[in-house]
Amino acid sequence: MARSPRRAGAPRLQLPLLCLLLQGATAILFAVFVRYNHETDAALWHWGNHSNLDNEFYFRYPSFQDVHVMVFVGFGFLMAFLQRYGFSSVGFTFLLAAFALQWSTLIQGFFHSLHGGYIHVSVNSMINADFCAGAVLISFGAILGKTGPAQLLLMTVLEVALFGINEFVLLNLLQVKDAGGSMTIHTFGAYFGLVLSRVLYRPQLEKSKHRQCSVYHSDLFAMIGTIFLWIFWPSFNSAPTTLGDGQHRTALNTYYSLSASTLGTFAMSALVGERGRLDMVHIQNAALAGGVVVGTAGEMMLTPFGALAAGFLAGTVSTLGYKFFTPILEAKFKVQDTCGVHNLHGIPGVLGALLGVLVVGLATHEAYGEGLGSVFPLIAKGQRTAMSQAMYQLFGLFVTLMFASVGGALGGLLLKLPCLGSPADCQCYEDQVYWEVPGEHEDAAQGPLKAEEPDTQA
Amino acid sequence: MARSPRRAGAPRLQLPLLCLLLQGATAILFAVFVRYNHETDAALWHWGNHSNLDNEFYFRYPSFQDVHVMVFVGFGFLMAFLQRYGFSSVGFTFLLAAFALQWSTLIQGFFHSLHGGYIHVSVNSMINADFCAGAVLISFGAILGKTGPAQLLLMTVLEVALFGINEFVLLNLLQVKDAGGSMTIHTFGAYFGLVLSRVLYRPQLEKSKHRQCSVYHSDLFAMIGTIFLWIFWPSFNSAPTTLGDGQHRTALNTYYSLSASTLGTFAMSALVGERGRLDMVHIQNAALAGGVVVGTAGEMMLTPFGALAAGFLAGTVSTLGYKFFTPILEAKFKVQDTCGVHNLHGIPGVLGALLGVLVVGLATHEAYGEGLGSVFPLIAKGQRTAMSQAMYQLFGLFVTLMFASVGGALGGLLLKLPCLGSPADCQCYEDQVYWEVPGEHEDAAQGPLKAEEPDTQA
Amino acid sequence: MARSPRRAGAPRLQLPLLCLLLQGATAILFAVFVRYNHETDAALWHWGNHSNLDNEFYFRYPSFQDVHVMVFVGFGFLMAFLQRYGFSSVGFTFLLAAFALQWSTLIQGFFHSLHGGYIHVSVNSMINADFCAGAVLISFGAILGKTGPAQLLLMTVLEVALFGINEFVLLNLLQVKDAGGSMTIHTFGAYFGLVLSRVLYRPQLEKSKHRQCSVYHSDLFAMIGTIFLWIFWPSFNSAPTTLGDGQHRTALNTYYSLSASTLGTFAMSALVGERGRLDMVHIQNAALAGGVVVGTAGEMMLTPFGALAAGFLAGTVSTLGYKFFTPILEAKFKVQDTCGVHNLHGIPGVLGALLGVLVVGLATHEAYGEGLGSVFPLIAKGQRTAMSQAMYQLFGLFVTLMFASVGGALGGLLLKLPCLGSPADCQCYEDQVYWEVPGEHEDAAQGPLKAEEPDTQA
Repeated sequence: MARSPRRAGAPRLQLPLLCLLLQGATAILFAVFVRYNHETDAALWHWGNHSNLDNEFYFRYPSFQDVHVMVFVGFGFLMAFLQRYGFSSVGFTFLLAAFALQWSTLIQGFFHSLHGGYIHVSVNSMINADFCAGAVLISFGAILGKTGPAQLLLMTVLEVALFGINEFVLLNLLQVKDAGGSMTIHTFGAYFGLVLSRVLYRPQLEKSKHRQCSVYHSDLFAMIGTIFLWIFWPSFNSAPTTLGDGQHRTALNTYYSLSASTLGTFAMSALVGERGRLDMVHIQNAALAGGVVVGTAGEMMLTPFGALAAGFLAGTVSTLGYKFFTPILEAKFKVQDTCGVHNLHGIPGVLGALLGVLVVGLATHEAYGEGLGSVFPLIAKGQRTAMSQAMYQLFGLFVTLMFASVGGALGGLLLKLPCLGSPADCQCYEDQVYWEVPGEHEDAAQGPLKAEEPDTQA
Repeated sequence: MARSPRRAGAPRLQLPLLCLLLQGATAILFAVFVRYNHETDAALWHWGNHSNLDNEFYFRYPSFQDVHVMVFVGFGFLMAFLQRYGFSSVGFTFLLAAFALQWSTLIQGFFHSLHGGYIHVSVNSMINADFCAGAVLISFGAILGKTGPAQLLLMTVLEVALFGINEFVLLNLLQVKDAGGSMTIHTFGAYFGLVLSRVLYRPQLEKSKHRQCSVYHSDLFAMIGTIFLWIFWPSFNSAPTTLGDGQHRTALNTYYSLSASTLGTFAMSALVGERGRLDMVHIQNAALAGGVVVGTAGEMMLTPFGALAAGFLAGTVSTLGYKFFTPILEAKFKVQDTCGVHNLHGIPGVLGALLGVLVVGLATHEAYGEGLGSVFPLIAKGQRTAMSQAMYQLFGLFVTLMFASVGGALGGLLLKLPCLGSPADCQCYEDQVYWEVPGEHEDAAQGPLKAEEPDTQA
Repeated sequence: MARSPRRAGAPRLQLPLLCLLLQGATAILFAVFVRYNHETDAALWHWGNHSNLDNEFYFRYPSFQDVHVMVFVGFGFLMAFLQRYGFSSVGFTFLLAAFALQWSTLIQGFFHSLHGGYIHVSVNSMINADFCAGAVLISFGAILGKTGPAQLLLMTVLEVALFGINEFVLLNLLQVKDAGGSMTIHTFGAYFGLVLSRVLYRPQLEKSKHRQCSVYHSDLFAMIGTIFLWIFWPSFNSAPTTLGDGQHRTALNTYYSLSASTLGTFAMSALVGERGRLDMVHIQNAALAGGVVVGTAGEMMLTPFGALAAGFLAGTVSTLGYKFFTPILEAKFKVQDTCGVHNLHGIPGVLGALLGVLVVGLATHEAYGEGLGSVFPLIAKGQRTAMSQAMYQLFGLFVTLMFASVGGALGGLLLKLPCLGSPADCQCYEDQVYWEVPGEHEDAAQGPLKAEEPDTQA
């Protein structure tokens, strides 16, 4: 076959050795630190006199599975819109997320669930680990097509650690509310990736520009990702909230917000499109902004109207971002944002954090009744006023932006290490650099006669 | 690019303005009327001394998510079988369903859950709204490829309203049983769409005939829709039934019915196929008829054998409908039914309603025991005999057919408004009328050498 | 159209008649033997004074739905990697599984849940029937592309019966633990299919070799199958385990095992690939071996580290199997294993059984506490020592290998019956033998001008 471009500079043993090293290190740390929690351990669970009904598995596992679909199918296929990068989009998503969930089990465990020197795991740690993998995949979206798998694994090592620290600062030290992760996941993941992409800026990237767009079928594959993300986002935002009304309300708010962001996206896409035509990039991405924007406020008494309004705003702003801001981001700020994560996760994440500030600030005993204690324990106990909690929320956003920016800059420097071997400018967005790629056309397309000639090869 | 056909007559601002208008109106109505119910509201839920276990969220939300997958992935991809209409099939499904679920929350709320002037929402309203969206998408299937998004949104406005009225008449006034919607969803959606398609009859549609068939890959995308619909149909039929044995039995009956309709479909497809070959159209559609046919009777004591027999009948009849009746429907009745909804939803829906009449008529105290009160409260209370309940069921079918026909006719007149700008006869089944469509072939398919020439554009 | 190859020898009525015969026989047996169980029957459920919460539906149905997705979407699309066999892969999966689940409801019912002469069905029988369908689809993977649907249905008749007997011997007579089916599903299904493939060995199969590989898009369709299998495997292994900690622990172990097998697969694939490139065949398949290998031990106190180690081993061995052993299997052992089920289900299944032997042998009262009775009732009651239970487990593996081999040989002889009409050697891996296949290219790809010529046909 004559169609193989030269490999990038990375030595061929780099990816295997890095995988083995990371898996080995993770396994050793698991052996030393990770233990079943009291709901997963046979002895501990049966020691207490529990009803099986009480096992949190039954309250959280269906939501976990929905989140799991979003991380692996949703993100993976959403990024498969590129015409020659589908294997990498789906495959590297698979690799990064599979590693991130082990590594973040350790990192989040150290910060959140260390009991007697051991990390206790359960369905809750699975949900949190998948959330962290989601943040990594958001960052991946910003640099999609311009980095190799070894680079991406190193980025994951760094980003998961910083994600864990940032999350610890927000949720434990500042006691900020952010169940669906407008700040911890979306804002953090987006700006980490964008700053990283800035550091890796390629002035000659137009050499690969012809591969940076979609083809008809790749857009349909991407819609698989979009739709599964859209469908299961109510489970994403509600997976870690308080049981009972908390999960119920969060799912409902997210459902309304997403439906409004979809209408906002179609409206704006047709409005700004050439001759009123819709643009698949907008539909695939901006319609999801409604899920991002209620990541903080979704568990609160946002009201159904509030959810619609927030979602509509997010879908509208996100679509306009794809149309007008992405080109500026590249031209003026030298940030090449392959998937437009700034429009889907960055701006809607910040808006979601601000919406959280607003809704927290408006929280009253009347609106939440006895439920105030489960949504805002510090306010219910009188340790904070609604306004001071709102200020903590706002501060949480700044902390997140700071961690993400510094982390992204560090990540960029790390990924520039020459030994890691980035793809050349003319080899970006091209699966053949990393994958054995079969031909495009089916033999039999020319009819069975030709197909039966024994010397025809795909 | 030389490949853009002239836009249809619709002014380019029509779709954006309609989206904004509908979203604005919905949001205002939500602000005025929609409130969290007692299981979703922080104050109301914590006011009672509830166990989280009792929150209906945990009984219904997994089923809701399955229904949600069916509406957005199932219907969307099932209609993506057309070679040049995948963007519209998946995209307009997305748009219509996102609007329908808001609008039907309002309409169904006015009729079913108005408490003190407010519509109370919860996981139940989410399920019901998705059901209504399903009916709209069935109607969409009948006119797929021949209408623009603005027309479809107006159809949705009308159809959701009539769906809500019809459902109110059946479930509340006539007290008919129809959990899985053989009548309210499938029969209503199908005949609404078919009558509407009759009104929009295009004698010159053969101008687009070359685009009305599938290609190899589009049939595989459609199978994604088929399989997800098939898998989750047990959740669809059981989502709104009584808790406990009701949901359990409905899921089981639907599972058996679908498996038998699949065997019936393969048998008939090979029997009537040229040289014994199977036809993807049959497999994609008729295999699902088993879910439709037990939409009414699935929650009843249908028996596992009854479910198999009903499913087999539905799969067989549906396949024969695709083969023999669809051409007659166009030639004699001037109904152009793009997706064959008459065979998948129309006839099986009517059969399902009649099966319901039969199974209701056979209901006895012995068969249902103390469970009679939860399946047939009026019979249990002695207010109706099984036979009179069966007659009400039959009357419900006629009411549904009437509402659907009159509604479809009204809808057709509405959609013929010249200002709405239908696609021309030679532009049907063509994404380019409404979407920016990328090229078909991947640059790199000709090998990397060509791909690296900077002037090659997709 | 000039592109239709001659049909294979099978008479055109064979498939329809076989479907009708099998469906008819199944329906009659259902009428005679199958009844709702006490949780599904209206009278029985309401006779006891149950809380709806106690209905097992709510504990098992979400897991069942995940398993259902794996069987129909997972297996179906995973096998759609072949360039010209996507219709058959997805379609025959659909047909075989729809029949297998009815037939195995009967077979498993006779062996496991016959009460007073009746088979009692519920969500548990649905899960078990889907498991059996999974084993059939594993065997299908070994002979994919080389057999027609009538042959496959007959294979299903035989395999389901033997699966039921083997399962009965293991779970009831030997009282072996195998919740996720490392032995009963994976080992059995794989070796049944491999021996069958050996009997059907085709020395002239290279005549179809040009169709035995993938194209770019078919590999992406296959990834849909892979990812859904990977995501939902924790539900597969945990679906039938004891409630409470049992399901919780099994899901967690499987989640870790899969993530490690993914890293192992990427490492090995890049290590053995030409110029360090990754191979989609490995990623699509070997990454799943982590689910297979904890099928037996997943419900036990494997520890999170144990799960990682087992998964890593399985992913590594499976990848090396695809690279080095599959060619030997064909060249030396005359086994043509289309999907490499030996590497994905055979070897990992045997490893999983051996892991089970090890973990059972190490079971102590200290590790399981009061939970010992729910995981190993015979050890808890003192009827077996851990070591003797481990020996029973080992014996179960041998029994399974024997049943699978003898069954596969019988199946091969059955499928060689000349009246069944296999596809010719030059027609293997070709949908057109069994399906009406549309053209490959979209008309409009050449632009709308050409598309509007009325005589252009797809």
